[in-house]
Amino acid sequence: MNEIATEAISLKGIYDLAFEVFCKYGCNQENATALSRIVHNAERDGSLSHGLFRVPGYIASLKSGKVRGNANPAIEHKLSSIISVNGDYGFAPYALEVGLPVLEKAAKETGIAILKITNSFHFAAMWPETEFLADRGLIGIACTAAKPMVAPAGAKKAFFGTNPLSFAWPRNEKSPVVFDMATSTLAMGDVQIAARDGHEVPKGTGLGPDGNPSDDPKEIIKGVLLPFGGYKGSAISLMVELLSAGLTGDYFSFEAGENDNNDGGPPKGGEIVIAINPNLVAGEDWSEHSEKFLSKLQNMSGVRIPGERRHKNRLDQGPRLINKQMLNKVRNLL
Amino acid sequence: MNEIATEAISLKGIYDLAFEVFCKYGCNQENATALSRIVHNAERDGSLSHGLFRVPGYIASLKSGKVRGNANPAIEHKLSSIISVNGDYGFAPYALEVGLPVLEKAAKETGIAILKITNSFHFAAMWPETEFLADRGLIGIACTAAKPMVAPAGAKKAFFGTNPLSFAWPRNEKSPVVFDMATSTLAMGDVQIAARDGHEVPKGTGLGPDGNPSDDPKEIIKGVLLPFGGYKGSAISLMVELLSAGLTGDYFSFEAGENDNNDGGPPKGGEIVIAINPNLVAGEDWSEHSEKFLSKLQNMSGVRIPGERRHKNRLDQGPRLINKQMLNKVRNLL
Repeated sequence: MNEIATEAISLKGIYDLAFEVFCKYGCNQENATALSRIVHNAERDGSLSHGLFRVPGYIASLKSGKVRGNANPAIEHKLSSIISVNGDYGFAPYALEVGLPVLEKAAKETGIAILKITNSFHFAAMWPETEFLADRGLIGIACTAAKPMVAPAGAKKAFFGTNPLSFAWPRNEKSPVVFDMATSTLAMGDVQIAARDGHEVPKGTGLGPDGNPSDDPKEIIKGVLLPFGGYKGSAISLMVELLSAGLTGDYFSFEAGENDNNDGGPPKGGEIVIAINPNLVAGEDWSEHSEKFLSKLQNMSGVRIPGERRHKNRLDQGPRLINKQMLNKVRNLL
Repeated sequence: MNEIATEAISLKGIYDLAFEVFCKYGCNQENATALSRIVHNAERDGSLSHGLFRVPGYIASLKSGKVRGNANPAIEHKLSSIISVNGDYGFAPYALEVGLPVLEKAAKETGIAILKITNSFHFAAMWPETEFLADRGLIGIACTAAKPMVAPAGAKKAFFGTNPLSFAWPRNEKSPVVFDMATSTLAMGDVQIAARDGHEVPKGTGLGPDGNPSDDPKEIIKGVLLPFGGYKGSAISLMVELLSAGLTGDYFSFEAGENDNNDGGPPKGGEIVIAINPNLVAGEDWSEHSEKFLSKLQNMSGVRIPGERRHKNRLDQGPRLINKQMLNKVRNLL
């Protein structure tokens, strides 16, 4: 493999570049700030597929007029445990910034609360929302659907999205336990990267256009991804569809697929975020108790606590080496 | 394979047999009723590993004195969305009967509520609790930990339980969508049955005592099960541990393993049940919307809606063919 050309940029430089690009394409201050923070935090954590890499997709949807750069999310909070944010056809990060502090306050008072986001375009990771809650002492659970890319167990055609599920568990004075994963074997981005680089993917990752299992990413791109873990993962993906769409009233993946303009950005959809206050549910010694468990787990040979790698990357405040080609693509947007 | 000898018993006969056995070993009316209903419903639905098959295990724990047949679960409901039931060292079904109607009422009023069960012994499936909620128009999510039997992804030693997760989605005038699954590749019972019958299990089901992947169930029994779906399933299993033990204050699987008397019955543990009211969160047309999705899914070739098989079995009110050898084992308890 050839060495990949990179350029070192400071974290502030990453933020500023993203901010300038978002503003140029019609984002107002609030939306550009929320989006740039997401891009910055992804690069900071080494969650590269959600960093600058996504900017051209965000811009494509601003240019096509599908997504509003000046969206003004509207919050409704009638019952103490239910918060609804109508995203006003903007990207999810600003809608989340509006909703999450209210969700936090609700869960701190009632013990458990739910945030429903609608009319929003989710193109980022979901750990920012679950970590927001865990950093404030709450358990966070979040999920969203997408466009059809995954065949339910037993089927050969796409019907589910890659339907990510994120969970965060708070730890006193430590980074939370956080996972954020597609419920497909791989994210479609990983399959595309494998195709580009000429790598195989594990058998079972997806089906080719003939409906047979394939380890060739090019064939899977023409075919369909599979859920992780067979029928059990498929059940989890089904749960994500029902919570993200059935419980929000926004699009199921199949509806998002029917209604999207395929401009390269994300489809419209809903998101559910649940916050639980362990102080109120478990009682005050919950943290000591779960730390006993987590330290045992952490000490097992071969085990990695979900989120650990990102949180370690985060400690480095220095510049990041950014793929030069991708960086130029973003700069050329200016 | 030899034909397996069976005997036809009516559903009422199954209930009565279980009830008589539970009473003989010290269960009071309330506990015997709750347990016999669970056994009856499992046989009715063809969920055989949770039917009469479990009775000897229940009895072993009553005989050893680990579990109280006259447990009197105590309910606490201080905040509108949090219900706690202290199981008083009894089996879970009666604690659930005490807690679920209160959880239902809470979620109907607040939109989302959580039931925490502690000091209880869970030896049944979890679809009875999530279906209870779905049959009343609510979304149900439940999980519980167990004793160490599963190696976290990357490890070679047991630390997680088989940690089941159940989810139910309500459907108007239809049986709910329900899954209830171990987060291990297989339940340990299935591995034991494969060992007894001389069958292989799929590679990746578990590790032998040498720490290498095995398809021999006898080796896996001496070794360890693996989570379903690799590191992703392992993350789900970790979430189940944290919710069932960290959020209840009851045993993590490793603590249950350290404290259990290994009498053949279940270990002590906690359980979390979350109920969500889609009428309040999604709005009134949630059912029509999700039925569009579910009917499309149902019409895909090769796809089975989770719970379908059990609900079909349920329609048959006739006698059930019970494994004669197992039946005699239960009758001999009298």
